[in-house]
Amino acid sequence: MSLLLSSETALAFRVADLTLAEAGRHQIRLAENEMPGLMSLREEFGPTQPLKGARIAGSLHMTVQTAVLIETLVALGAKVRWASCNIFSTQDEAAAAVAVGPTGSVQSPAGVPVFAWKGETLEEYWWCTERIFDWSTEARAAGESWTGPNLILDDGSDATLLVHKGVEFERSGAVPATQPSDSHEYSVILDLLRTTVSATPTRWGVVAKELLGVTEETTTGVHRLYELAAAGNLLFPAINVNDSVTKSKFDNKYGIRHSLLDGLNRATDTLIGGKVVFVVGYGDVGKGAAEALRGQGARVIVSEIDPICALQAAMDGFQVARIESVIGQADIFVTTTGNKDVITVEHLLAMKHQAIVSNVGHFDNEIDMAGLESLAGVTKVEIKPQVHEWILPHGRSILILSEGRLMNLGNATGHPSFVMSNSFANQVLAQLELYVRAENYPVGVYVLPKHLDEKVARLHLNALGVELTQLTPEQASYIGVPIAGPYKVNHYRY
Amino acid sequence: MSLLLSSETALAFRVADLTLAEAGRHQIRLAENEMPGLMSLREEFGPTQPLKGARIAGSLHMTVQTAVLIETLVALGAKVRWASCNIFSTQDEAAAAVAVGPTGSVQSPAGVPVFAWKGETLEEYWWCTERIFDWSTEARAAGESWTGPNLILDDGSDATLLVHKGVEFERSGAVPATQPSDSHEYSVILDLLRTTVSATPTRWGVVAKELLGVTEETTTGVHRLYELAAAGNLLFPAINVNDSVTKSKFDNKYGIRHSLLDGLNRATDTLIGGKVVFVVGYGDVGKGAAEALRGQGARVIVSEIDPICALQAAMDGFQVARIESVIGQADIFVTTTGNKDVITVEHLLAMKHQAIVSNVGHFDNEIDMAGLESLAGVTKVEIKPQVHEWILPHGRSILILSEGRLMNLGNATGHPSFVMSNSFANQVLAQLELYVRAENYPVGVYVLPKHLDEKVARLHLNALGVELTQLTPEQASYIGVPIAGPYKVNHYRY
Amino acid sequence: MSLLLSSETALAFRVADLTLAEAGRHQIRLAENEMPGLMSLREEFGPTQPLKGARIAGSLHMTVQTAVLIETLVALGAKVRWASCNIFSTQDEAAAAVAVGPTGSVQSPAGVPVFAWKGETLEEYWWCTERIFDWSTEARAAGESWTGPNLILDDGSDATLLVHKGVEFERSGAVPATQPSDSHEYSVILDLLRTTVSATPTRWGVVAKELLGVTEETTTGVHRLYELAAAGNLLFPAINVNDSVTKSKFDNKYGIRHSLLDGLNRATDTLIGGKVVFVVGYGDVGKGAAEALRGQGARVIVSEIDPICALQAAMDGFQVARIESVIGQADIFVTTTGNKDVITVEHLLAMKHQAIVSNVGHFDNEIDMAGLESLAGVTKVEIKPQVHEWILPHGRSILILSEGRLMNLGNATGHPSFVMSNSFANQVLAQLELYVRAENYPVGVYVLPKHLDEKVARLHLNALGVELTQLTPEQASYIGVPIAGPYKVNHYRY
Amino acid sequence: MSLLLSSETALAFRVADLTLAEAGRHQIRLAENEMPGLMSLREEFGPTQPLKGARIAGSLHMTVQTAVLIETLVALGAKVRWASCNIFSTQDEAAAAVAVGPTGSVQSPAGVPVFAWKGETLEEYWWCTERIFDWSTEARAAGESWTGPNLILDDGSDATLLVHKGVEFERSGAVPATQPSDSHEYSVILDLLRTTVSATPTRWGVVAKELLGVTEETTTGVHRLYELAAAGNLLFPAINVNDSVTKSKFDNKYGIRHSLLDGLNRATDTLIGGKVVFVVGYGDVGKGAAEALRGQGARVIVSEIDPICALQAAMDGFQVARIESVIGQADIFVTTTGNKDVITVEHLLAMKHQAIVSNVGHFDNEIDMAGLESLAGVTKVEIKPQVHEWILPHGRSILILSEGRLMNLGNATGHPSFVMSNSFANQVLAQLELYVRAENYPVGVYVLPKHLDEKVARLHLNALGVELTQLTPEQASYIGVPIAGPYKVNHYRY
Repeated sequence: MSLLLSSETALAFRVADLTLAEAGRHQIRLAENEMPGLMSLREEFGPTQPLKGARIAGSLHMTVQTAVLIETLVALGAKVRWASCNIFSTQDEAAAAVAVGPTGSVQSPAGVPVFAWKGETLEEYWWCTERIFDWSTEARAAGESWTGPNLILDDGSDATLLVHKGVEFERSGAVPATQPSDSHEYSVILDLLRTTVSATPTRWGVVAKELLGVTEETTTGVHRLYELAAAGNLLFPAINVNDSVTKSKFDNKYGIRHSLLDGLNRATDTLIGGKVVFVVGYGDVGKGAAEALRGQGARVIVSEIDPICALQAAMDGFQVARIESVIGQADIFVTTTGNKDVITVEHLLAMKHQAIVSNVGHFDNEIDMAGLESLAGVTKVEIKPQVHEWILPHGRSILILSEGRLMNLGNATGHPSFVMSNSFANQVLAQLELYVRAENYPVGVYVLPKHLDEKVARLHLNALGVELTQLTPEQASYIGVPIAGPYKVNHYRY
Repeated sequence: MSLLLSSETALAFRVADLTLAEAGRHQIRLAENEMPGLMSLREEFGPTQPLKGARIAGSLHMTVQTAVLIETLVALGAKVRWASCNIFSTQDEAAAAVAVGPTGSVQSPAGVPVFAWKGETLEEYWWCTERIFDWSTEARAAGESWTGPNLILDDGSDATLLVHKGVEFERSGAVPATQPSDSHEYSVILDLLRTTVSATPTRWGVVAKELLGVTEETTTGVHRLYELAAAGNLLFPAINVNDSVTKSKFDNKYGIRHSLLDGLNRATDTLIGGKVVFVVGYGDVGKGAAEALRGQGARVIVSEIDPICALQAAMDGFQVARIESVIGQADIFVTTTGNKDVITVEHLLAMKHQAIVSNVGHFDNEIDMAGLESLAGVTKVEIKPQVHEWILPHGRSILILSEGRLMNLGNATGHPSFVMSNSFANQVLAQLELYVRAENYPVGVYVLPKHLDEKVARLHLNALGVELTQLTPEQASYIGVPIAGPYKVNHYRY
Repeated sequence: MSLLLSSETALAFRVADLTLAEAGRHQIRLAENEMPGLMSLREEFGPTQPLKGARIAGSLHMTVQTAVLIETLVALGAKVRWASCNIFSTQDEAAAAVAVGPTGSVQSPAGVPVFAWKGETLEEYWWCTERIFDWSTEARAAGESWTGPNLILDDGSDATLLVHKGVEFERSGAVPATQPSDSHEYSVILDLLRTTVSATPTRWGVVAKELLGVTEETTTGVHRLYELAAAGNLLFPAINVNDSVTKSKFDNKYGIRHSLLDGLNRATDTLIGGKVVFVVGYGDVGKGAAEALRGQGARVIVSEIDPICALQAAMDGFQVARIESVIGQADIFVTTTGNKDVITVEHLLAMKHQAIVSNVGHFDNEIDMAGLESLAGVTKVEIKPQVHEWILPHGRSILILSEGRLMNLGNATGHPSFVMSNSFANQVLAQLELYVRAENYPVGVYVLPKHLDEKVARLHLNALGVELTQLTPEQASYIGVPIAGPYKVNHYRY
Repeated sequence: MSLLLSSETALAFRVADLTLAEAGRHQIRLAENEMPGLMSLREEFGPTQPLKGARIAGSLHMTVQTAVLIETLVALGAKVRWASCNIFSTQDEAAAAVAVGPTGSVQSPAGVPVFAWKGETLEEYWWCTERIFDWSTEARAAGESWTGPNLILDDGSDATLLVHKGVEFERSGAVPATQPSDSHEYSVILDLLRTTVSATPTRWGVVAKELLGVTEETTTGVHRLYELAAAGNLLFPAINVNDSVTKSKFDNKYGIRHSLLDGLNRATDTLIGGKVVFVVGYGDVGKGAAEALRGQGARVIVSEIDPICALQAAMDGFQVARIESVIGQADIFVTTTGNKDVITVEHLLAMKHQAIVSNVGHFDNEIDMAGLESLAGVTKVEIKPQVHEWILPHGRSILILSEGRLMNLGNATGHPSFVMSNSFANQVLAQLELYVRAENYPVGVYVLPKHLDEKVARLHLNALGVELTQLTPEQASYIGVPIAGPYKVNHYRY
């Protein structure tokens, strides 16, 4: 670990290596140019400081792009504490730069308390997550009496989960004993809560009460929130950032269109042109993948379970087939579904020699990695990190990228800054909604109003040289929309 | 007029020319092969006759494709009367073939009473529309006592409007006098209703009461229905077929992708490759247009008012500009907006010599045709029907297609059969819903449930050689959907 | 026939119908805007009249575009006589307009003697061809003693063939008797030559001697010329216009990319999106076809005999398969090869019901039409002109376009004006080369020098808004080319 | 340097690190699967050992792909010595693996003498090049009397140059003194030759006499050979491998289509979608670049000096503009020309802030790097290796990749194996021609006969699942080609 955790006496995070912080600052500067949405929000809202008084607990991959997000929140007046939402995803130089701050030094950091480093253990991970809820340092400094944040910015809902579990166990009077069937990660959470609840039995209730709400980044996190809401257990309002058009289409379609090729190239250097690529799923991710691959001269075959998406794939000129029908033809496989076992061990065994198998959809169970690992007679050879040749019992081999996990993260560098600028501008606007217009959001799960989705898009047009046309009053009246938007009904599909 | 109206003593429509009916039958036979959705519905539902007892008043362009729709409704047990929804759109051979019926003859027609011919006057048009509500012949034949249909299948809501206006005037006690500010068409409607209401003062109230509902094809018609519903004036349930994915995406995106090129080619024979084409609007229609034009090697420039659609256009690689910025560069203009005056006279005057101006969006006011016609010093030369050169006062000229009306109809042949098979399969399923599951539809406006939208897609897969993948029970459970669908949340954007 | 042949006392061609000439003039005016290459040549060379004294015998489809070519030759000082090179390809209104001339009238024609009408018999066709070699009227008017033209502009080499056959038979002393194995067309040629040679036994020798050369438009014609040259029988220099980049790539790739879709749409109105299209051949024509079809959302499968072209198809993302492997999948077939029997009767019998079969390659023997016609139990139904359903013995049917002949001519309108502007600008420059720089061209077959090929391209740039970059002297020197070009070695492949 | 040079007593190259050799062997094994052309040649020719007796001096980037080439030559019977043709391009693990050989060990190498490591000085580079001409070890071992190789396999013509310069100076009696105007590299060559000529005054004459010829890989090298031939100074036959279709199209078009994106992504992680990219030049490289960028959703603007290529760009739907016209719009610049100063310092100063500037064409003078370096007030910041931000005097900055050198090599990994399999299969066939059919190649420069070009393509079809169609005898006869090819005239453009 190249970063040292600070004591809790002052700022939470100390940087061992100024070079790291400087490298991070450099990358942040370049990323700012590719994140016009966030930079525009700084310009628009910096002067009025609408987030003054906001205390944001952030749990989201601590990357260079997130650094630009954090510093935007700060530029709007917020105080922030930050953890990563994944044990591997932190870019240490970004964490260091944010902790030091643009004007600080290692000795005198002027940044944000960051609890994140690349390669955390699960115990460390949940310790970091807990740290973003302890605002005692800030409270003391400000002479205030609050305990924790008043806003959560979440990715995958771990931070939100911790509060809900804490409240649940406080209410039931005890943190339950760990069961043999509990996952290791759940046992770590239980241990952590046991410690905190025993220290302060009302800790999480107070935290929950102070919270105005959470803004959630991902499909998975949103799913959890809807479940909590449906069960009547949601403790505070939530904004589903994931389903903004400017988030979901960008992350899913345009982000993958970019990073799929990047991942394939860095992992394998295989010529994509002329190859047959089988794309499992034709949702937004599959559409982006198929477009990228065709753009490189591959022949793409798609599979789908949804007849509407299947028909779209056909109308876009792709062959649509079941994997079993064409498995011997494909050179590369890309899963995009969010479902499990879409590539089974039987499929893996039927592939061409040295077929490349990769996942940009979801967890590593899209490909039956567990089944492969337990297959008798299989040998795994590391070609390089995140690229493994699995020599199968029949003698042929296949190449699996990123151990079956998201290869756009494991073999490439995830979504580019411009894509994240869209997602994060939605996050900032969602934080503003919860903080400034809290009265509009009783406990429940909301998507951002369409005019804010349109605003996010609008903030990215200048950077691309896009000229927007403006409705005349007569035209606006004729089609019955305000000149300034929103322009479409909510169910419009884009 | 090549068709003669019948007396009302027997069937409403008689065909003067058997050759016409035979030609139409021939085209219907070919169209059936391209309309697998409708043909599959005949197979699935023909045996059980679920529309037995249904009396459908149809008002929709009387084309070859509509003929396949009508005969599908009949194959499912319905009785049908039909008018066109546009004075020019009838294909006389299709009308003749449907009136004669697959097994009939001119002397002994075995088809459907059709009230439609190409080139109706407005008086004739509304007379035809009224005729589809007079089911006295059928009632007498069946020994029944009903007055009119129990279902409307509508396109543009004219048939629905007639009933609502009739009821409104019956309730108010009188059809109002025509005002000088009334359009000619409205005066024709008032005259018609004056006649019918004076003949039978309760006519339209009875008709309305017998109606189980209407299924509506178009954006414009749906808009009227939502307005009626919002004002509390809607008299019976309505299903918005227009917003099914398999309707709107097919009609708008894939239909235009096909027919825009067809219209440009038939009208002008101009090489599209290498040309600069300005596409006004990047909704579904604009997306289809831009894709088609790029596919021919044109350079496409897009304009948009909606920042989200503008950003999509940029991400798809198109220049996005205001028309004023690039007007001197474009060789071809295509409007796709549904708004008015998106090309003004000032724009027309600034175009290159012999620029081609065409509309696939909406009414002829997308281009300010009225302004052009009243421009001093302008000369209009007919190059061929639906293609006019307008020589402008400054000496340059422009080519306007279809008088500024929808050129995919005026210069080409509208949507291909396969596209209409999707729309019309939605219509059939919607008619079935209203007739068989009427209890699910109290007065209001509905979209078809997603599983039916998916069903329509499913009916078109085999014809395209698409193999659909099926979820395993474990997978279905994992993502929380039924194996048979529906697969997506309602707000999914495709 | 709507045109009457004149007596030979004055101009050769008289127009029965002024309306026809006016319609043609109108279309010529529009075409001029799409033929910037020809119009630029008029501007550049009109003032100096470099073709003054040239007497051009033209044999090329008498279309609107050819009218612009003819009037360009005249604008450069040439005298012209014209026949069509195909019995069906004349557009009568274009012929009429050229004969009347821009400033003439029916009574007092001021145009070019045109011998062409749509639907000639073979006898009429060859009579017309012979007429373009009889310049006695012009000689008398000019007080000159020549017999015929000094230049031929040929398409398919029929005019050149007539001269060569005439000379051959004059030299051998007699036109041979028609043999039973001779084709009907050859017997017509023999009859014609028998008449002319008996009238003037040295006629063709004199004609050949006066000729500076021929410029040939097509692959087929060029093939004949190379054969004559190889056998030592070529009588005068020939320029192979066909192999200019700006001719072959435009005609073959960009022309077909345009007109294939046009032909399919006009013939069938079938949605191309989502369909499987089998393209036989991936040369320039096949490349244009495949690109167009993909641009419409079709899935294209290609077949090839040449491994290099096959590899190109694969690298461009297309499936490459033998027709037998996928015949049951394809909805549409397009032949592009220039070879025979690439679709056999066995293939036709194996196709899907109502598969569409079309040829844009060459003669009607690409598809074994003769075999189909003689197949027992087959029925041919005319759906509309140039579209026939062939009901096969097994009960399925197929649709054949243009009787298996070139469907871009038969079902569409051939190459657009802009494409022909490239071809014809090459023709004009080739005529200029033979006339002005005859000393550079001893008897033999030549392609145009690269700088003229580049010039043709250059003449079309402005119309498309293309800005060309100019080399600095240092750059030109660095890569060793003149600033003004030519820029590439002769074997450069573009 | 991680590799140690051996003494010359045994094999020339020793590997310090077996791990390196093992890693290289691993990559070679994967590359073999992507190089079907070479592997097929091993299968076809391995049994008959047609290169038995061949002594090949290779000078070509010592990469993993080259390793597969070298071991193919060995598999066909040749003896080989190898140097790299670039001081930076060696992949040390590949060099190590080849030196060790598939069955050897560090202690007992069984491979090929390799003189190459990453990061040579110029002195080391030319020493290595000289080493491939010293076959005394092999001669002694074989009991033969030759001095050097009998074949050169060259890339960039450095090996060929050394022989020619050696012979020139031997003939003139002395190596000239180094002049102040000589480049550093030339002075290194002079020093080297001074040493060798003084040691053995007839050394290079003997080497030249023993040589059957050279096969040359690149445009630059071929250019030198044609100059030598034109000046009458070429000493032995040369085959221009560069201009085989399967070499030039693959390297230039398909190779760049792949590696341009890879380079941009690895260097900058910038989203390419939606960006404006200016591509300088629309030859094969520019065509590949433009296609790749469009496939990622960029808007591409092209510049050209050649009107034919400019017209092609327009017909392919790209805007064609001079750089000055659009310089402020572009986010990314890509040069592809092979010319110098196509981006000048003035251009660099006019670009957007953080515009990305990259070269895939030729030397680093495509971009005026020298001018930039000497610009007053400029600051160069290394973002990471091969990526530099140049902060310009006006305050904006630009990002320059690979110091202006070929970024597909510097920021990515060069051409993928499949591309190189095409190039190298041409090399192997060319070596075979010179060795087996030397009588067909008197001194001169040749391209490979078309049937061998076709053969190379053919060897790559199976790997892509391509089914080739075979001509029937009737069809072959009809179009006048052999069934087995070649299928096209030499000037065919593909």
